[in-house]
Amino acid sequence: MTSLHRTRRSTVRAALVAAGIDALLVTDLINVRYLTGFTGSNAALLLVAADDEEPEQAHGHTDRTTDEPDPRTRFCTDGRYTLQSQEQVPDLPRLIARPCDVALLRAAPAGSVGFEARSLPVAAYDTLQAIARERTRPVSLRTTLDVVEDARAVKDRTEIEALERACAVADRALADLIGAGGIRPGRTERAVGLELDQRMRELGAEDPAFETIVAAGANSAVPHHRPTAAVLAAGDFVKLDFGATVDGYHSDMTRTFVLGEPAGWQREIYDLVHAAQAAGRQACVVGATGDAIDAASRDLIAAAGYGPQFAHGLGHGVGLQIHEAPSLARGSASIMAPDMCVTVEPGVYLPGRGGVRIEDSGVIRPDGYHVLTQTSKDLGVL
Amino acid sequence: MTSLHRTRRSTVRAALVAAGIDALLVTDLINVRYLTGFTGSNAALLLVAADDEEPEQAHGHTDRTTDEPDPRTRFCTDGRYTLQSQEQVPDLPRLIARPCDVALLRAAPAGSVGFEARSLPVAAYDTLQAIARERTRPVSLRTTLDVVEDARAVKDRTEIEALERACAVADRALADLIGAGGIRPGRTERAVGLELDQRMRELGAEDPAFETIVAAGANSAVPHHRPTAAVLAAGDFVKLDFGATVDGYHSDMTRTFVLGEPAGWQREIYDLVHAAQAAGRQACVVGATGDAIDAASRDLIAAAGYGPQFAHGLGHGVGLQIHEAPSLARGSASIMAPDMCVTVEPGVYLPGRGGVRIEDSGVIRPDGYHVLTQTSKDLGVL
Repeated sequence: MTSLHRTRRSTVRAALVAAGIDALLVTDLINVRYLTGFTGSNAALLLVAADDEEPEQAHGHTDRTTDEPDPRTRFCTDGRYTLQSQEQVPDLPRLIARPCDVALLRAAPAGSVGFEARSLPVAAYDTLQAIARERTRPVSLRTTLDVVEDARAVKDRTEIEALERACAVADRALADLIGAGGIRPGRTERAVGLELDQRMRELGAEDPAFETIVAAGANSAVPHHRPTAAVLAAGDFVKLDFGATVDGYHSDMTRTFVLGEPAGWQREIYDLVHAAQAAGRQACVVGATGDAIDAASRDLIAAAGYGPQFAHGLGHGVGLQIHEAPSLARGSASIMAPDMCVTVEPGVYLPGRGGVRIEDSGVIRPDGYHVLTQTSKDLGVL
Repeated sequence: MTSLHRTRRSTVRAALVAAGIDALLVTDLINVRYLTGFTGSNAALLLVAADDEEPEQAHGHTDRTTDEPDPRTRFCTDGRYTLQSQEQVPDLPRLIARPCDVALLRAAPAGSVGFEARSLPVAAYDTLQAIARERTRPVSLRTTLDVVEDARAVKDRTEIEALERACAVADRALADLIGAGGIRPGRTERAVGLELDQRMRELGAEDPAFETIVAAGANSAVPHHRPTAAVLAAGDFVKLDFGATVDGYHSDMTRTFVLGEPAGWQREIYDLVHAAQAAGRQACVVGATGDAIDAASRDLIAAAGYGPQFAHGLGHGVGLQIHEAPSLARGSASIMAPDMCVTVEPGVYLPGRGGVRIEDSGVIRPDGYHVLTQTSKDLGVL
């Protein structure tokens, strides 16, 4: 995995050079994981733009607990993770110290050091500023926004394969749940959700990708309903929005079923959302903006008179986080690039009656959107 | 629950008055939950020090989406949570807007407004500073550290009852696991951990309190081992460190068992840790420092020659977070007060052989430490 992480670091280095920043202090743990493979709960990375990580320098370094200046890209964690970091991050010089951000800044080469302003707390920044001022070889802190997040928006093959596995676990768990008669009148939303979560774990998920939504009857009109003791009843819509986390990557899928013969209004809004979801997928082409893709789907719903009943964005990136760049929503200037992974999830919600959402996770390719969540989107009658 | 949250807000107001701050912008979601009861994923609270929350003002307010100046304590969330916040936070004026911190600062009365510097990101702070500057009625932002966290260290009755329930779920899940023969040679660490987690969920836990540790044989010498495919074998130590989350509160317990007849070295370090854990509990008295409590336990282990094999702190507060104030560790100046809830968890780890940790969660009372985790601490032979 090390050449993989070195390639990712190289991509971020190019962004640093373009921004005129000498090094980036990566403190967001998700970004640290992306760039190094480390999965522990405390770590940071100082990514030096001019460091070419020659293979010869990657061998034979011993861990240090002192923070002497070093011109190289360095990883830092604390003593609990010495062994784990040796296994997960064998290719970078390691510093064992805490706090990690302070130790790395003390040891940084002179120059400008970017910090991650969207996640670094003010108190931690104040401490880093004090360190910067007391250094004899000057360091100037520079605000950065989304440097690593923007790189993460475009997935490499390893990431797409992890997303494929995460989507396959969710597909399989749902198929097994339905096959076992798990979605039936008389069960509670909570029981259905717990069984779905348990099936995903048994199929290899580290965890559900987020709190599983099971919403029956009128509850299906609540976009982000938490499962309750409400009992599924004949004639209900049952909306399931869930996913699996596999190797740190999150799948995200929504399907809406009917318990028994669908009523006319149910078929009407289902067919509408089904068509709008297809239109959204078709609009997911390289070069399109998030705003344009959202509009392609939303316009269909608005034309049918249900615009106000679709009050959320169309989709979002998925990866090491369940919500990440790019955004598919009104006003989003995100531009689609090959190998971005995004959800497409329009919905129509009729308060007091019920609602429908249909959501896929998929990959944007030069020839269009490739769905990763394979469960049928035809109206399922259970 | 509303009088409960009003009481908590009143405690924090007194701290604001003492610090000479007119209002506190609470952006940490755990702190928002503590002060309002709201459990959604996006919210903030502007707690005005001079607001006495007269009951008459608590009725009949309608939600607003504009952010006109208002001298009252106000809660803010976004449109996804309108209904949920009406149910969970009926007693505060509500603003429906995003971003919540910006909307509340725009609407804040003139004066000094504290922000939570340990969690507020620099980018969010920069935005708030810009808002503060463009206001006609001046607001000055003031750094605060741990204002709500310090209040949270002392638990009220509702919190202690939730911790009792969380500890009882963990006790019961472990007893059931052992009763069903779930900890036996031939099983993997991972299978044991998954069963324990599942049993906690079935007993009413929202989730495990953290990633459950099951560490067998030599793995038990790794303080924070993640369960693997390693197979439990006769003669092994098996260390389980786990807890349940109930109503948002986290229990934390470690027990170490032996599979079959304990060897001499196993009994020796078990008895030592057992005695050190008792000494730690006995030192948990009102007025003691975290440093002194840590020393009372650590000195016993050091006197037996195992000082270097106990490389972590003795304990920590538990509550809405699994690690919170106060700290029981070397150098900790935290002073114990009645109704603080803390863990006591010494350990001795012999690399390559095995390790023992024994941990309780409990409450500090005027007459001493009351254990909440009831599972026996005698050496369990399975």
